Amino acid sequence: MNSRVKKVVVEMRQQNIDQLIVCDPSSIDYLIGYQNDPGERMYVLLLSQNNEHTLFMNRLFYLNKDLDIDIVWFDDTDDYVKILSQYIKGDGCIGVDKFWNAKFLLPLMDYLPQTKFILGSQCVDFIRMVKDAEEQQYMIKSSQINDLAVDKMIELVALGKYSEKEVAEKLATIYKELGADDNSFLPIVAYGENCADNHHMGDDTLIQPGDSIIIDMGCYYHGYCSDMTRTVFYKKVSDEQRRVYELVKKANEAAEGMIKPGVRLCDIDKCARDIIKEGGFIAEFNHRLGHFIGRDVHEYGDVSANFDMPVKEGMIFSIEPGVYIKGDFGVRIEDLVLVTKDGCKVLNSYSKDLKVVG
Amino acid sequence: MNSRVKKVVVEMRQQNIDQLIVCDPSSIDYLIGYQNDPGERMYVLLLSQNNEHTLFMNRLFYLNKDLDIDIVWFDDTDDYVKILSQYIKGDGCIGVDKFWNAKFLLPLMDYLPQTKFILGSQCVDFIRMVKDAEEQQYMIKSSQINDLAVDKMIELVALGKYSEKEVAEKLATIYKELGADDNSFLPIVAYGENCADNHHMGDDTLIQPGDSIIIDMGCYYHGYCSDMTRTVFYKKVSDEQRRVYELVKKANEAAEGMIKPGVRLCDIDKCARDIIKEGGFIAEFNHRLGHFIGRDVHEYGDVSANFDMPVKEGMIFSIEPGVYIKGDFGVRIEDLVLVTKDGCKVLNSYSKDLKVVG
Repeated sequence: MNSRVKKVVVEMRQQNIDQLIVCDPSSIDYLIGYQNDPGERMYVLLLSQNNEHTLFMNRLFYLNKDLDIDIVWFDDTDDYVKILSQYIKGDGCIGVDKFWNAKFLLPLMDYLPQTKFILGSQCVDFIRMVKDAEEQQYMIKSSQINDLAVDKMIELVALGKYSEKEVAEKLATIYKELGADDNSFLPIVAYGENCADNHHMGDDTLIQPGDSIIIDMGCYYHGYCSDMTRTVFYKKVSDEQRRVYELVKKANEAAEGMIKPGVRLCDIDKCARDIIKEGGFIAEFNHRLGHFIGRDVHEYGDVSANFDMPVKEGMIFSIEPGVYIKGDFGVRIEDLVLVTKDGCKVLNSYSKDLKVVG
Repeated sequence: MNSRVKKVVVEMRQQNIDQLIVCDPSSIDYLIGYQNDPGERMYVLLLSQNNEHTLFMNRLFYLNKDLDIDIVWFDDTDDYVKILSQYIKGDGCIGVDKFWNAKFLLPLMDYLPQTKFILGSQCVDFIRMVKDAEEQQYMIKSSQINDLAVDKMIELVALGKYSEKEVAEKLATIYKELGADDNSFLPIVAYGENCADNHHMGDDTLIQPGDSIIIDMGCYYHGYCSDMTRTVFYKKVSDEQRRVYELVKKANEAAEGMIKPGVRLCDIDKCARDIIKEGGFIAEFNHRLGHFIGRDVHEYGDVSANFDMPVKEGMIFSIEPGVYIKGDFGVRIEDLVLVTKDGCKVLNSYSKDLKVVG
């Protein structure tokens, strides 16, 4: 049994979870080294405190290597939830993956009315939060590529002739030229008032002088994600835009400056949020300060008031304060940070000084 | 209240569901005309038999138009599951979306220990299965574009110089040139023995004479999907490949030939499966015959032994028998069909005659 699975079993013991249903394909790949995209079909790694681990596979899934684990195969037409239920301790406490769908969970609960089901994926997530040396290297490289790519994206925007969507569509090619695999998420390219929608899907909007420009982007490198945001301005910048930009930058840098092992995630969030608040904005910063990241662009763990967990060496997460003024403009500045022995390494080095382009 | 919501409420009454938790963004868009990508955040449309419908929205989600529905807003740091629980009848029977995640469902069950939760998304899915005239037109057009695009893809493969991945990467551009929006899923381009993995992710494999080539692809047109598969051969075809190809084609055409209102989905599956079986293959056809499709490339409803539902006019689903010979080759032939008043319209017209290219 490999060391990652061992660590999860230790967590299961601490949380009194007898068996754990893992369904997140990223977690399964992380634990047993097998990548699979199950679509809507059931796909479960069942881990047990007693180290009897089983993988439940649809015959449609293609196995191109030997896995060191027992496999139970089933067909589309089998009652696969019932099959799974036969491997579960009826009187046990069963941890369930946060992503498991109701279409599997509810029938399983019907088959096992005496069983206690609780959310259990933290047993895996706590381990995934801390990146080992190899993972760190991939993520450092992924962000280095992102720093180079954002410069090319800003150059494209500065030409003033491409719509948001057109710029966004060019990014995958830029990444490939720089040695990355692909976008790790659909990039956000927003001009002007569209910047106030922090998840804006790029459209045919063309840029106008005085627009803020938000570019939020990331790539995969060896299966690991990057994610960064820069905000620049086109042709000119108003006093209000400048004031907001400097405020967001201050919040970003102050939060990054306080990160070291032992500092709580909620306190990092509070530091940035208080600065934005002192600048006169509360509702305009309408999301958590950051999220964990690794194989998935959003992994378990927030930099927010909800998480009082102290940070540990090896954790990687985003710091991305923003201020969004509806109908006018928006600013977000996002880096990834890697917690080190006595501080943090900011994985993005692209300048955060206010920039007017075009 | 619009007619789609009305139909869902009728289904809820028939199934004795007091309130229904809808979380599938496609279903919410279908019902209230608002498209949102909630990522990992809670996003729920709560429908009630008594017609008090409520949308639960994170403040991060951007609303750019008025919706004719009550909205409850919450923040990342709120206990949003608790907020939702306060709108649910504690002694009722609550339908749950098949896609709802355990991370919301399990805490909700803790808040409402007396409430009965059952799978309820069929109330929406039954309505979505039957496409109205406008939806049919978009899907017909989407498949027409797919027919044109597959020809270009086969031409590219026939050049013999591009890897599976390189061919697959060219498809999005082909679609855009033909007026579609994008891939509706990552296309499958598989050569030779890779064809035996029916969900093969294209890699650097180059084509060899005698290879089967599976191309499984689809686009979006006005938000509606197409999905088709053709298998061709490179330079030459063996007797065994020819025999398998003709068998799969026969199964595809026989299944399509029997479709009309009233025929059961399981019988359509059986028709194709029996033909493949008579040809000597059972385990080699390791998936359902087809799936429903619309806004999502895989929607609720299978053409398989699991579904004894009779088909209705306006339903659209795939017919895609396949035979996969591990380590050797594979064949799949897939069309979309639209059930008409007295038969079906096959939405793909690209020839299914055996083709050797290159």
